[in-house]
Amino acid sequence: MSVTQLHPKADGPDFSAGCAFMDGEFVPLADAKISILDWGMVRSDCTYDVAHVWKGRFFRLEKHLDRFESGIARLRMELPFGREELEAVLHTCVAKAGLEDAYVSMTLTRGRPLKGIRDPRLCTNNFYAFAVPFVWLATPEQQEDGVHLHVSSIPRIDKASVDPKVKNYHWIDMEMSLFEAYEAGANFVVLNDLEGNLTEGPGYNLFTYRDGTWTTPGEGVLEGITRGAVLDLCSELNVGANEAVMTVDDLHAAEEILVTSTAGGVMPVTQLDGKPVGNGKPGSATTRMRQLYWAKHAAEDWSKPVRYDLAES
Amino acid sequence: MSVTQLHPKADGPDFSAGCAFMDGEFVPLADAKISILDWGMVRSDCTYDVAHVWKGRFFRLEKHLDRFESGIARLRMELPFGREELEAVLHTCVAKAGLEDAYVSMTLTRGRPLKGIRDPRLCTNNFYAFAVPFVWLATPEQQEDGVHLHVSSIPRIDKASVDPKVKNYHWIDMEMSLFEAYEAGANFVVLNDLEGNLTEGPGYNLFTYRDGTWTTPGEGVLEGITRGAVLDLCSELNVGANEAVMTVDDLHAAEEILVTSTAGGVMPVTQLDGKPVGNGKPGSATTRMRQLYWAKHAAEDWSKPVRYDLAES
Repeated sequence: MSVTQLHPKADGPDFSAGCAFMDGEFVPLADAKISILDWGMVRSDCTYDVAHVWKGRFFRLEKHLDRFESGIARLRMELPFGREELEAVLHTCVAKAGLEDAYVSMTLTRGRPLKGIRDPRLCTNNFYAFAVPFVWLATPEQQEDGVHLHVSSIPRIDKASVDPKVKNYHWIDMEMSLFEAYEAGANFVVLNDLEGNLTEGPGYNLFTYRDGTWTTPGEGVLEGITRGAVLDLCSELNVGANEAVMTVDDLHAAEEILVTSTAGGVMPVTQLDGKPVGNGKPGSATTRMRQLYWAKHAAEDWSKPVRYDLAES
Repeated sequence: MSVTQLHPKADGPDFSAGCAFMDGEFVPLADAKISILDWGMVRSDCTYDVAHVWKGRFFRLEKHLDRFESGIARLRMELPFGREELEAVLHTCVAKAGLEDAYVSMTLTRGRPLKGIRDPRLCTNNFYAFAVPFVWLATPEQQEDGVHLHVSSIPRIDKASVDPKVKNYHWIDMEMSLFEAYEAGANFVVLNDLEGNLTEGPGYNLFTYRDGTWTTPGEGVLEGITRGAVLDLCSELNVGANEAVMTVDDLHAAEEILVTSTAGGVMPVTQLDGKPVGNGKPGSATTRMRQLYWAKHAAEDWSKPVRYDLAES
């Protein structure tokens, strides 16, 4: 899991902390800034996606790009270029930063309107992206020992107001829930919807395991790519998998709990609201899922190599 | 309503398009950019306020600062300085830009955490502000003729998820409502809450007038400073004023409708979902309120002069 600077350059910009694509140019991450007038900032009117690279290979990149393009269409925006160029930009960010293991983010904002005009149809949408060393939501120790989950008292923004299938930055509910979680001694949090059914946490989906079946909330959540990977692995393994309405009672009745995120993969939950889940250690079904998830990163049909030749472009 | 460059300078930065305060320095607006990693951007985890200057005087600035500080406390953030310095920064932005009529925005974001840490308590909050020429949500013609209001089919983000009293950038519901409005031939929009009660529009509050009384939604809305000004003017005029639960039926039954915003003041609504409000022209109660609102901008107890001497600071 080491990060290797594959293409160090004696001259030129220093991309060692990350490479961004901003206003049509590749720039060091520290120089990647956005106007405080962009509607992505002043209206959080944007969608994004985060893919990752592991040991020099993009993991399920097409699924991320499909979701990103779907979010863009739902928000009635338009990318300034096609899929091929989008993909080339992401590969180039990783290549220029010389990363073997990378967190690769792409955002499209509404941009800015003509002066004095408020019609969102007249904005020029603004694309940017960046690659940085792989990000872990859980430390290596937390991944071995399991994370501690808190159930928030704050309801998730309703899906009728903001479509959770459009990956978005409307996170104040998540942020205030994180305050709650940290103060309760936890480090992860899950939010209920207004009806009291479980949804998701800040950047991750939730699964429970019971009687040989994995279950994850089916509605009011982002359809996470890692969530999808777990569902696909269940199918390959002939293990039961279920998308359903779930409540906190299902959490308490679970034999095992895990959370999924591109930033960290499959992570065991070993405490729920201060009480141990099962025997308080990562369960065997979770450990098996975690191993399979990482093993898939080398599979030809689940990943493809970064085009490091684009570093010179 | 002209904009005068009071202190043009031969050398030094060009603040004619606006002056921002960013990372502790005064910079031309075009240079005011924020890191794409700031949690204000990637989590819309921030609060803001917008005050205005009219004919060289800040209008009810204390009320804006009170609200801004209240939002900061509710989001559990901290300003890097006290009220006196905050106020001096805003005056200086206006003074350096040489504006007599200005739109003055201030934002505090969560900022960025230490590398690898997700605990929002450990972020260094990030303050910025800017002054630009006064912004009108409605053109001069629209202010004379009235704006056209659409009732959105999209519900406003619920107050249990995101406190609407904390002025925030969670606007995707508003943005998608604006698409609806423009396509319906309107230019303003109001959203219902999940229970079907009226709330607010993107940047403005709503009032109806009937039987001698002004009524505005009492819950699930930002407590707008212009909304407060209208309520105070009702009190001064001995006109009835009411904060209440309202539905679209109340809009249809209204004799007059107006919307309020710092960016434009009191604006008459003369069409509702394609039908004329009253006789389709701004009503006399609205016109009177609009005149009084602007007249108050010169009043000693409602406004105070910009400290233009700070231009040289």
